[in-house]
Amino acid sequence: MISFENDYSEGAHEEILRRLAEVNKEGITGYGNDSYCESAKEKIRQACKCPEADIYFLVGGTQTNQTVIDSVLQSYEGVIPAETGHVASHEAGAIEASGHKVLTLPQLEGKIQPKDVADYLNQFYSDGNHEHMVFPGMVYISHPTEYGTLYTRGELAELSDICQQYHIPLYLDGARLGYGLAVEDTDVTMEDIAEYCDIFYIGGTKVGAFCGEAVVFTKENAPRHFVTLIKQHGALLAKGWFLGVQFDTLFTDDLYMKISKNAITTAARLKEILKEKGYDFYIDSPTNQIFVEMEDEKLKELEKNVRVSFWEKTDEKHTVVRFATSWATDMRKVEKLGESL
Amino acid sequence: MISFENDYSEGAHEEILRRLAEVNKEGITGYGNDSYCESAKEKIRQACKCPEADIYFLVGGTQTNQTVIDSVLQSYEGVIPAETGHVASHEAGAIEASGHKVLTLPQLEGKIQPKDVADYLNQFYSDGNHEHMVFPGMVYISHPTEYGTLYTRGELAELSDICQQYHIPLYLDGARLGYGLAVEDTDVTMEDIAEYCDIFYIGGTKVGAFCGEAVVFTKENAPRHFVTLIKQHGALLAKGWFLGVQFDTLFTDDLYMKISKNAITTAARLKEILKEKGYDFYIDSPTNQIFVEMEDEKLKELEKNVRVSFWEKTDEKHTVVRFATSWATDMRKVEKLGESL
Amino acid sequence: MISFENDYSEGAHEEILRRLAEVNKEGITGYGNDSYCESAKEKIRQACKCPEADIYFLVGGTQTNQTVIDSVLQSYEGVIPAETGHVASHEAGAIEASGHKVLTLPQLEGKIQPKDVADYLNQFYSDGNHEHMVFPGMVYISHPTEYGTLYTRGELAELSDICQQYHIPLYLDGARLGYGLAVEDTDVTMEDIAEYCDIFYIGGTKVGAFCGEAVVFTKENAPRHFVTLIKQHGALLAKGWFLGVQFDTLFTDDLYMKISKNAITTAARLKEILKEKGYDFYIDSPTNQIFVEMEDEKLKELEKNVRVSFWEKTDEKHTVVRFATSWATDMRKVEKLGESL
Amino acid sequence: MISFENDYSEGAHEEILRRLAEVNKEGITGYGNDSYCESAKEKIRQACKCPEADIYFLVGGTQTNQTVIDSVLQSYEGVIPAETGHVASHEAGAIEASGHKVLTLPQLEGKIQPKDVADYLNQFYSDGNHEHMVFPGMVYISHPTEYGTLYTRGELAELSDICQQYHIPLYLDGARLGYGLAVEDTDVTMEDIAEYCDIFYIGGTKVGAFCGEAVVFTKENAPRHFVTLIKQHGALLAKGWFLGVQFDTLFTDDLYMKISKNAITTAARLKEILKEKGYDFYIDSPTNQIFVEMEDEKLKELEKNVRVSFWEKTDEKHTVVRFATSWATDMRKVEKLGESL
Repeated sequence: MISFENDYSEGAHEEILRRLAEVNKEGITGYGNDSYCESAKEKIRQACKCPEADIYFLVGGTQTNQTVIDSVLQSYEGVIPAETGHVASHEAGAIEASGHKVLTLPQLEGKIQPKDVADYLNQFYSDGNHEHMVFPGMVYISHPTEYGTLYTRGELAELSDICQQYHIPLYLDGARLGYGLAVEDTDVTMEDIAEYCDIFYIGGTKVGAFCGEAVVFTKENAPRHFVTLIKQHGALLAKGWFLGVQFDTLFTDDLYMKISKNAITTAARLKEILKEKGYDFYIDSPTNQIFVEMEDEKLKELEKNVRVSFWEKTDEKHTVVRFATSWATDMRKVEKLGESL
Repeated sequence: MISFENDYSEGAHEEILRRLAEVNKEGITGYGNDSYCESAKEKIRQACKCPEADIYFLVGGTQTNQTVIDSVLQSYEGVIPAETGHVASHEAGAIEASGHKVLTLPQLEGKIQPKDVADYLNQFYSDGNHEHMVFPGMVYISHPTEYGTLYTRGELAELSDICQQYHIPLYLDGARLGYGLAVEDTDVTMEDIAEYCDIFYIGGTKVGAFCGEAVVFTKENAPRHFVTLIKQHGALLAKGWFLGVQFDTLFTDDLYMKISKNAITTAARLKEILKEKGYDFYIDSPTNQIFVEMEDEKLKELEKNVRVSFWEKTDEKHTVVRFATSWATDMRKVEKLGESL
Repeated sequence: MISFENDYSEGAHEEILRRLAEVNKEGITGYGNDSYCESAKEKIRQACKCPEADIYFLVGGTQTNQTVIDSVLQSYEGVIPAETGHVASHEAGAIEASGHKVLTLPQLEGKIQPKDVADYLNQFYSDGNHEHMVFPGMVYISHPTEYGTLYTRGELAELSDICQQYHIPLYLDGARLGYGLAVEDTDVTMEDIAEYCDIFYIGGTKVGAFCGEAVVFTKENAPRHFVTLIKQHGALLAKGWFLGVQFDTLFTDDLYMKISKNAITTAARLKEILKEKGYDFYIDSPTNQIFVEMEDEKLKELEKNVRVSFWEKTDEKHTVVRFATSWATDMRKVEKLGESL
Repeated sequence: MISFENDYSEGAHEEILRRLAEVNKEGITGYGNDSYCESAKEKIRQACKCPEADIYFLVGGTQTNQTVIDSVLQSYEGVIPAETGHVASHEAGAIEASGHKVLTLPQLEGKIQPKDVADYLNQFYSDGNHEHMVFPGMVYISHPTEYGTLYTRGELAELSDICQQYHIPLYLDGARLGYGLAVEDTDVTMEDIAEYCDIFYIGGTKVGAFCGEAVVFTKENAPRHFVTLIKQHGALLAKGWFLGVQFDTLFTDDLYMKISKNAITTAARLKEILKEKGYDFYIDSPTNQIFVEMEDEKLKELEKNVRVSFWEKTDEKHTVVRFATSWATDMRKVEKLGESL
């Protein structure tokens, strides 16, 4: 069985394994107050060219979204994502469980359109009844999106402008950030993200780490007593250094970007193969997630040899599935798939 | 500097490191639906002699308490701990943030007294106004307690009886469970815990793992859709197998108990030394946490060479500090402390 | 100025005023444990032909929705309304503030379609990822809807069937229930509502009372300790009898239905007049709310003499406004409007 | 049966009844945006000599406490009351249900001691672990307390000083405020309360109104979008004017104080009688609640003719009961009690 099921089925980059073994018995102070976390933060600040960034390490994506969104929003505020955004659809109501409405906008290839955001905000404040409604308190985007697509630099700038105009933060979920930045055609850099977004997180779980996400507040805008808020959300790791060491490794010698490129290279070859074999792409994704629409019969055949993710039914006879590559995908596995198709 | 600061400053047992490296590139399915988790669960069931136990792996202690307590309680119910219980004092309000009152009882050496629990429950239902009050919905104990002390088998049986009488579960926080079970004098076994408690968790973070706690529902009493509830609390690890492998290792060849013993042996020697040197124990703890009351001046002196945890002030000139050993404590470090005192 | 602004701008029916004055100094026990509440409940049970119904009196609509929905749902569940449902749009996030997602479906004339509900539920359970999603735990309808429209008996039966199939309750928000039942053409009776709905509430605030909503659990399905839950939601009135007396009055000699009819009769005449004057109805509402779409210029003119509610903009030059009648609307006011147009 | 069960068993002062009937059919705009609310607010501002006060009307006490406390606190903060404070004991967990811990201090005659508050705050910030604890974010007092006792002007000033020093608000629950201010011996005026407290509420439910509490923010410190927050807590009354008219009446010609005095006069006579008859006062309360400790046998006897409230058991044979008078208590009822004892 050849698996392209997801991008979180391997462990950690071997350099992380090596360093964890190295510091394993050192005896390091708890809760992230250690030199490895400090070093990792400093390297991330440099990678973002954002020397004043305030950085925190959390364990997973849903946890990070819940903790950040709940901590940043006022209790009368909700968050605006695309209807396909992770916070809207696949977090089991984690945002609502912490008291906030998710105010979804339509998606286009997994993205929200700046114009839709502007219209929504404008209309909200025009509505005479808006005191009886949830205030829009944050715009949430994922980059890459849940459909593997990317915002352009222009779109980020536009979204940032709109958010500034309404005095609400722009928050970017970068669970797969490396895979977005490693695409050749993108005009978006880490630095751009730090400039346009008020808050973003750099995904570790899907890009080389056992687990871990680095939340970056770029505008001296971390919530007061954020450590207490992290603790309150059950998200403060006793061995914070376990995350610090991993991010310190990922941001040493550009490792994060180097290993991200592997996902893109293998995905590109995979797309080539799928195209040759006559598969139909459901969406044109430049990153490590490839969405293919197939007849159910053909899918059954495929699943004899290949593990992919079910995505959605498009009609009674067709299904969208996802092939995912990652930092750990071996090109030989891709070629092997080609042979087996 | 010799550190006895806490029991979570080292990483993972080397056998865990070895196995993580071994499976690192295997490509394992996500969210705990993997064979390592299954194997770990089976081994835990055997260790508890509780074949029908339902087991889940979470990342940290506060997260586990919050997720379990919120999922098990009805919304009109609160949880009863000792006033020194972790959920009452050091979780930044995680229980209240999920909507539940913490109904504290007085502590005696860190423990709640069965009689106090019985009186509380009896009085609650005698109060004509109890419909305007939070219903007691669960009894929470930590074993070892936050003061390193242990319940006896008789006390557990008594608490269990009271809980059954009022149809509420007994929940045991076993963040340091191994250290409790490894004490020679205790009459409490893992099997007893599974028998008397409706829910308990086996701490990994403080006993040999990078992170991870194994929640055990012993009476076919896991909440419906508990995976969804874990997800909603931001507590579902994408790479669930990362926890599974660690617990599978800890419960292979009795490793969990073997390494727990080291904490007790080193603590025993440490107590001997402290006693010889004339230190006063604040509480008589049989486990890996040793509480010493000192004059502030003497403490200042000590802290030049030794790192301990501040616990509390007893008066203006005296302070209680904690020395902690762990699975990873080297006896030579203890002896070195003896020399330096 | 002639006002058709809303249906809650008058106080209480004079018979209620009379009875409140009558019992004012009686000295009645608190929190709804009084004979007026008991009597009102009994009369409502008779009106519903539902002798086993469990009934509670709350103060307002949003409060009732929040308390009922939060108390009935499990924490992993959300509620399914139309996107125009009150709980989805105009309760300032009260449902989310109590931890639950609002799972909106498209609306057709303010109603959800049984087929859409069935499809949603079917698709949810077909989705392999549904453990990471909010479970649908209740269907919410308003009757009349926020657009004044009504479900048919057939639609209620169908919705009820679907809910039963998925073991989730059907909840009907009857803030304006009287106005729905008083329509001549409707085939839905109070008895039907008690039969098809698991929970519904009978609106008092908009139908003759100063305030008050009567929640009816029709299937012996009131949540355990519901009084405690009401208290916890800040919704338990000390002088519960103040609500009891009002509902007792409204359900004596069919007063509730009689005064509801006045809203329908005056609305019918109002519609006639508006039609004669060439106004365009935005939606065909048989109840006491009339939605008219107008050019903004014409609206400005109208607003010199008449107070209506802004509803929504349909384009840059057109607006939908609402005319509302009520139990207290004097027909002479309607005729006066006719003259002034 | 002569009842001294509580102070909320009568309806509204007859002048309120008269005015409600007067405006009943006027057609008044909703949600508190009406001239009666405005007028009531202005009169309250004058009564407090606090022209810049921001005032809101809510329906009941628990609702008011929940809405105010949740809206004012940050999510990492809790509220500090006496252990006997209403928010700590008899609100069914309403504060925790909105996410906040109740940080109780010991009570002395129902009051918290300024020194205890200062010590708590000082100790909190001295604790090295306070980032893992709930931050104290507000001090809550009731005046009169749940035991009928009163703070002195000096105590209020001291509490105010401490709160200012730690930058947290002092909040006074005035569910029975009138009864506190009407005591002859008190040195506390409404003006003092507005000066020393950052927020307080003036109870209507227990002092002459059907229902209603007026929340006063004295330092231009109302939470942003407080109307939205009220709505979100299910506490925004559609017919806001129903509360406005009541408070407007209560604050016209000093009615609130005049009728409050009746409770004090009748309570004074009641105490005299009880003293004569040899009853033991459990606590020395100067206001309208009188606590008497009795042998259970004697209590049984008493309850044949008199309705009082059970308060608490002091031992197996003794019980504390409460006699309450109110604005509506007829002196003849008191004398009749005297005769029957």
